[in-house]
Order: sequence, then C-alpha cells, then structure tokens
Amino acid sequence: MNLHSRNAPSQTTAVTAELCQWIVGLKGSDIPAEVRREGLRTFVNWVGCAVGGARHETVDRALAAVLPFSGPASSTVLGRGERLDALHAALINGISSHVLDYDDTHLKTIIHPAGPVASALVALSEHRTIRGYDLLTALIIGVEVECRIGNAVYPAHYDRGWHITGTTGVFGAAVAVGKILGLDERQMAWAIGLAATQSAGLREMFGTMTKSFHPGRAAQNGMFAALLAEAGYDSSLRALEAPRGFANVMSDKQDYAEILDDLGTRWEAALNSYKPFACGIVIHPTIDGCLQIGEEIGDRVHEIEKVELTTHPLVLELTGKRGPKTGLEGKFSVYHSAASALLRGDGAPTAFTDEVVNLPEIVALRDRVVAVADANCHEASVDIKVTFSDGSTLKKHVERAIGSRERPLSDEELDRKFRVQSALVIGEARTEALLQTSWRLESLAESCEVARASAVR
Amino acid sequence: MNLHSRNAPSQTTAVTAELCQWIVGLKGSDIPAEVRREGLRTFVNWVGCAVGGARHETVDRALAAVLPFSGPASSTVLGRGERLDALHAALINGISSHVLDYDDTHLKTIIHPAGPVASALVALSEHRTIRGYDLLTALIIGVEVECRIGNAVYPAHYDRGWHITGTTGVFGAAVAVGKILGLDERQMAWAIGLAATQSAGLREMFGTMTKSFHPGRAAQNGMFAALLAEAGYDSSLRALEAPRGFANVMSDKQDYAEILDDLGTRWEAALNSYKPFACGIVIHPTIDGCLQIGEEIGDRVHEIEKVELTTHPLVLELTGKRGPKTGLEGKFSVYHSAASALLRGDGAPTAFTDEVVNLPEIVALRDRVVAVADANCHEASVDIKVTFSDGSTLKKHVERAIGSRERPLSDEELDRKFRVQSALVIGEARTEALLQTSWRLESLAESCEVARASAVR
Repeated sequence: MNLHSRNAPSQTTAVTAELCQWIVGLKGSDIPAEVRREGLRTFVNWVGCAVGGARHETVDRALAAVLPFSGPASSTVLGRGERLDALHAALINGISSHVLDYDDTHLKTIIHPAGPVASALVALSEHRTIRGYDLLTALIIGVEVECRIGNAVYPAHYDRGWHITGTTGVFGAAVAVGKILGLDERQMAWAIGLAATQSAGLREMFGTMTKSFHPGRAAQNGMFAALLAEAGYDSSLRALEAPRGFANVMSDKQDYAEILDDLGTRWEAALNSYKPFACGIVIHPTIDGCLQIGEEIGDRVHEIEKVELTTHPLVLELTGKRGPKTGLEGKFSVYHSAASALLRGDGAPTAFTDEVVNLPEIVALRDRVVAVADANCHEASVDIKVTFSDGSTLKKHVERAIGSRERPLSDEELDRKFRVQSALVIGEARTEALLQTSWRLESLAESCEVARASAVR
Repeated sequence: MNLHSRNAPSQTTAVTAELCQWIVGLKGSDIPAEVRREGLRTFVNWVGCAVGGARHETVDRALAAVLPFSGPASSTVLGRGERLDALHAALINGISSHVLDYDDTHLKTIIHPAGPVASALVALSEHRTIRGYDLLTALIIGVEVECRIGNAVYPAHYDRGWHITGTTGVFGAAVAVGKILGLDERQMAWAIGLAATQSAGLREMFGTMTKSFHPGRAAQNGMFAALLAEAGYDSSLRALEAPRGFANVMSDKQDYAEILDDLGTRWEAALNSYKPFACGIVIHPTIDGCLQIGEEIGDRVHEIEKVELTTHPLVLELTGKRGPKTGLEGKFSVYHSAASALLRGDGAPTAFTDEVVNLPEIVALRDRVVAVADANCHEASVDIKVTFSDGSTLKKHVERAIGSRERPLSDEELDRKFRVQSALVIGEARTEALLQTSWRLESLAESCEVARASAVR
C-alpha cells in the first residue's frame, strides 16, 4: 500500500501518467472473466435503475430545461420517448439512474459507480457505433478508475463535504469515453485533467433534486472532457497528484498507492454491490432487519411501543431526518425507513412516495423509533430492539445487510429488482425484452440496441 | 464588516436567502450612475477581448469538440461565423474572452469578473430578447455577487488551489441569468445552489488551454443553473453558508459579512479594472516599468547586463517560468514579459506568441533577468534595477501599474485596446461598428445587436 515500496520516490509525481499508461494499454481480454461478469451485473442493474427513475418529476424538470438547447437527437432518454444529443442524454440518464437511490454502491467509498460511467457510454453508443464487448470493457475501466481515485481520498474527501459519486464519477466517465475514443496516453491525461477541473458536487444538496444532478453531470462532464482531449484541447498531465491538483485541493488524504497498486490484479470494479432498497446504503441494515421482524411478528406490529436502533454514527448523520414530509426526505430518514419496513414490508421505491411518508399509521410508528449512534457498530450492521405494549421485547442483530458483498443479490434477485421498477415505466413486455438485451450486452454488435429497447415511442 | 454587528447571530444561517432577497428586489435604476458607467466599461472591454481571442487555437479546438453536439444555432460565437445553442455559445465566448489573459480584474480577489457573466448574458441575448439596459443591470448584479462571494473566501480559497474566476464565476452567471429570467427568491436560491454544486476549476491548469475553460464553463454552468431553477429543479436554499455548502467545503475562510454588508451602497462591481497587458495581472507592474525604461534608454537596451526585479512573492509563484517555450507559457514568465517590454515595447497579445517567445534576442535578454521575492513589496508594485555593460545602473520604482484602480485605463485607452485586438480578427470597419454598438448597450432595444455586429459571415 505504500507507493514507495514499489517505485522510486520521484514516481509519486507520475500518478496520472502511470494510470494513463495502464488505461490505454488494457485490452478487454485482460480483464478476468469474473470481473467482466460483475461488470455485466453492474450494467444490467444500471439499465433497470435508469428506466425505473425515468418518469420521476426530477427527470421531467431537468428535461424541460434541457430540451430547448439539445443538439442532434441521437440518443435515447432511457425509458422515455425523447431523444437528445449524447451529452445531454448522459446528463438525464445519469439523473434518472440515481433519482430513486436504488443504484449500485462501491461500499469502501459509498461511490455509486455506474451512474456517471454507464450514462456516458450508453448515450455515446447512439452517437458512435460501439460494440457491446467494448462498451463493457470501457465501463469496467471507468468504474475501476473512479473507485481507485475514491479510495485514494476517502474518507477525508467525503468528510469535507464532497459528494464523492460526483467528484470521482467525472473521472470514470472521462476515462471510459476516452477508451472508446481511442485516446493516446497524453490525450488520456488531458481528459483526466479536464475531468479534475470539473470535479464537483456538494453533500449539502442531499435531500434535494440536485443530488441526482451529480452523477448525471459527472457523466456529461466526463464525456465532454474526453471529447475535448480528442480534439486536442490540452490540460495538465498530472492533474491527480500535482500540488494544486485534485487530491491535494479536494482532500486531506492522498494515498496514491490506492490508485496505482496492483493495477490489473486487484479489481475494485469486482466489488460493486446493488441496492435491494431504494435509499441510502447506510439504512439498508435497518430495513433488512425490520423487514425480517415484520414478517416474524405479523399483526403484532400494531402493538409496538418503541423501536430502538443502535447504528454507526454515519447513519444518523446522513439519514437522521425526524419528520420527513416528502418521499425524497423519507430516503433520508432512518425512522421512516424502519416504520415502512415494519408496517408495509416495503423498502422499494414505493416506500418513498410523498403519500406513504405522510400516512398517519406510518408517522405514528416512525415517531416511536429511536436511534442511538455507536462508533463500535459497523456501518453495515445494526442492532434492533422492539418493545411491545405488553412489555415484551424482540431483538434482531443484522451483521451484514442483504445487498452487501457478504450477502450479494443473486442474478435472479437482480432480475426481480429490474422487472419491478422497469415494468411500472415501460410495461412488462418491453421490460422483458430490455432485460434480455441487457444481459446479452457482450454479444451485441451495436450496443445502442440497449438504449433503443428501452424507448417508449 | 462583522455580520453580528447588524444581524442576530442566527442570521448567519440565512446568507443565501438575504442575498437572494436583494438580487430579486433590485431594479436597474437602483444602481448608481457611476456604477452603471463602470459596468458599461466592463462590458465594452469584454466584447473586445472575446473578439480578440476568437481565432486562438484554444477556441478552434473547443469549437471542434462542441459543434457535433450543439443545439439550435441561436447564438453567435463572437468574432466568428459559427453559431451555437446559447449554452455552448456561453462556453466558447467565455474561453475566447480569457484566452489572451487580457480581460478584466477585480484586484481584491484576482477574479476576472466579466468572462463568466457577460458570456452567459450575451449568448442568452440571442435566445430570448433582452433589452440592453436590462442586460447591463444583470451584468452588474452578476459581477457584484461573484466578487462579494470571492471576498468572503479570498485568499484562503485561492491559496488552496482554486481558480477563483471559475469557482465564483458560476455564481455570477447564475444570478445574472436568473435576474433576466425573472426568478423569484426561492428559485434564485436554487440557482445559487445549482451553481455551488458546479463550482470548480483548479489552478494546476494554469499554463494550459484548460485555464480558459474555467470562465467559459462557469458561464455555461451558471446559465444552466438558472434555467434548471426556472424549470422547478430544486436545490439547497443555503448553499453558500451551510456546513457542507460552498464556503465551508471550499475555503478555510468564510467572511459572510463580505457578501451581505452594505448591499446596494458598497459596489464591488465599480472596482473592476482592465488589463493593459495580455497576461496575468501580477506581471503588470514589471511590464509597465520595463516599457518606461525601454523608452528612456532606446538603443542602450542592447547593452543590458542584468535586470533585477524585486516583487511580491506571488509574482514568482504564479509567473516564475524560467524557460517558456510557447506563447502561452510566456504569459507565466515574468522574465519573458520583462524582456519583451524592454526590447520590443510590447505587452499586448503580440508579445505572447510562440514566435516571439523563442526569438534569440528575447531569450538572451530574458536569461539576464533575475527576480527576488519580497513579502514587503505590494502586489501592484515593483522595483527594477538595470545594470549596463559599462557598470552603470538605472532604477525604476512602479508604485501602481497602469490599469490599476489608482491608474485606471481611460475610455480612450479602452477604445485603443479594443481596436488593436479586434481589428486583427474582424477587420477595422466591423471593429468600429462593434465598438460603437457596444458603448450604446443601454439604449439598445435588443441587446443581441452586439453579438450580431461581431459576426464574420
């Protein structure tokens, strides 16, 4: 993990260059089969989420702002009828894939990796012909780079207030698109430079529509960085490690070994996970446990006097909203999430609507939920204690939530998640065809088939 | 200057709200005549710079990347024939207005205020009808907000490595466009939130094409922030002051009184200055002094043995390049700048071409220039000591460079600067018409006349 253990000290000044050398040299066949398989799962999960979020009013509003300025309508807004130029399509698909907080998670960094990268690639697939095999290769490289850069600065970078999916996602999109464009090493470094100088996104925006803007804009900005580099627009050649480069300006921690060590053998892209519940990953253990309790107790749910949660402090910091009023705010309330799981057995997007958040029975139960932060509690664990009106209690410990690396969603569970959210937007028949096309990505001569299969005409 | 002296402590949580109240309520007639006059000078100077930079290869390359994705071709690329959608036109005009490092400067913060703001407004003026009077009002408000936000975080923010023209420019563009769109207070706060979450730009990019990208992208992103807010895309209502908002995440200094105090009576927009020389403002005292020495010594310039500069440390930090190879690098070399001013009497864009930077006589003189940093030396001052081959010496102290607030360019000098750079790009006849149209801005029923007058068809 120490860069100096494998390189001369002077090499700390060549982080960007060494990374670019690897990116440009890598062939799809260099990626192990199991990593490609996880990349495909990442892709399928992303398609389902992008379609699932396509009719959210956040997407409607962004689309209304974008349409008067869109260029040649090459690229599909997934799950809808509109087409946009590839840059704007990347933005909108990135927003829709994140808007339900139902996407994927690199658990080491809480990055949601596919949004910025896949949104760019799929939009580009209708602008230039991209073989499905190559699209998957580029997706994996983009996710790999994004997560490695995230590792290098997490947690200091996130703690400062940066929404890491936006700030690192722009690198993933730039590198992935740059790979498709066939950039050389110098151009790839420029693309990373242009990505670094657009790296942005504040955690203050959580709970508003602007949170979903981050992966979308990262996709668009990263794609644009690669296109500019292709056109010869130059930039720094050491944007990651320079004294006034990304890592030093935007983080108190810079562990460059996380970026360079074991490239091609350690695969962060293989560590991706997929959310079973439509909200921030930190609430998942609570929902998982409450769902189990709900099934166990049946009608006794109405006799609950008190629910005590013991969680990692981050849970309260990120999702401590006591009285959410909207579905979106509900995603940032561990209290609402617990109540919905207990009372309705629901952690899907349907648990986070304005209507459900304001149901009297949900509000009543929510107000009986208490959460205590315990730094000794793992982020992926929770202890739940339910006290009933007769004084009896029930305890549940969740060591690792479903959807975590230890309890990953199976392909069948991914299919189920895909079908449930997609069918609501494009119907069952289109959903089935889209799901099959998505799984066949690697064999598609033209990867634009996926976007086209999602379109409602 | 202390916020608490005029507001209850709790008001520190309403910085964004209070600022928005002022922005939305302000009428053009509330702006004092002398401030409007300085705003007009800011506008005229910006038009000249945008046209002057229009044929730079930086602009060519950005345009090549943008054209395949541009939407409805409403808006002129100043000084050229191409038209783009308003968002992309804002980007390109922002790049061209900055690419010669010849634009304007708010000296307290080293922000170049017009690039992000005017580029957005003028691009929008061909998309929606904007009266010239209203465009000037919006420009002044945008510059005011951008510079006040800059004051609140400078110098800590800049010292950390942020290119402040990009990071604060996006607020100026958002607010200016928001004013034109007639946003209400809540929408204006959303626009500021969407601007905050796009605030970006690293100083590492200085010396590359990506530096000019910053004001251009700030213009485009700020305009987009306002358009999204208009479409109901919501965001934080306290993006400036929240614990994970702009000022706390991106700076160690947060002086909110700089944003709120004396709104409407103290005008930062009236403090704008205009560069007489086509490079970073910190070299201007040196060029000013060397030009004067050059005139005084005539042919004895060939007998110079040594030139000693005593400058503020920032001069060497920003412009300490010893051996520049390109025109662009020459702008970051106080040595080259001194040599060019002494030998050729030139500080205009013609002093910073690849050819001039590599002239043997320039290189020979450049290598005889020595610079010493002295923290006691004011940023706008320099001491120059020239030693001749016969041992004689000549000393020159520049207290404040031409172009500074103490020695502002006159309207006639602004005209001369405009004419010299614009005529090279669009010819003398068009330049003359464009200059007159620009000065008449406030009386134009349709401000798009300015952009149209700059077009080469």
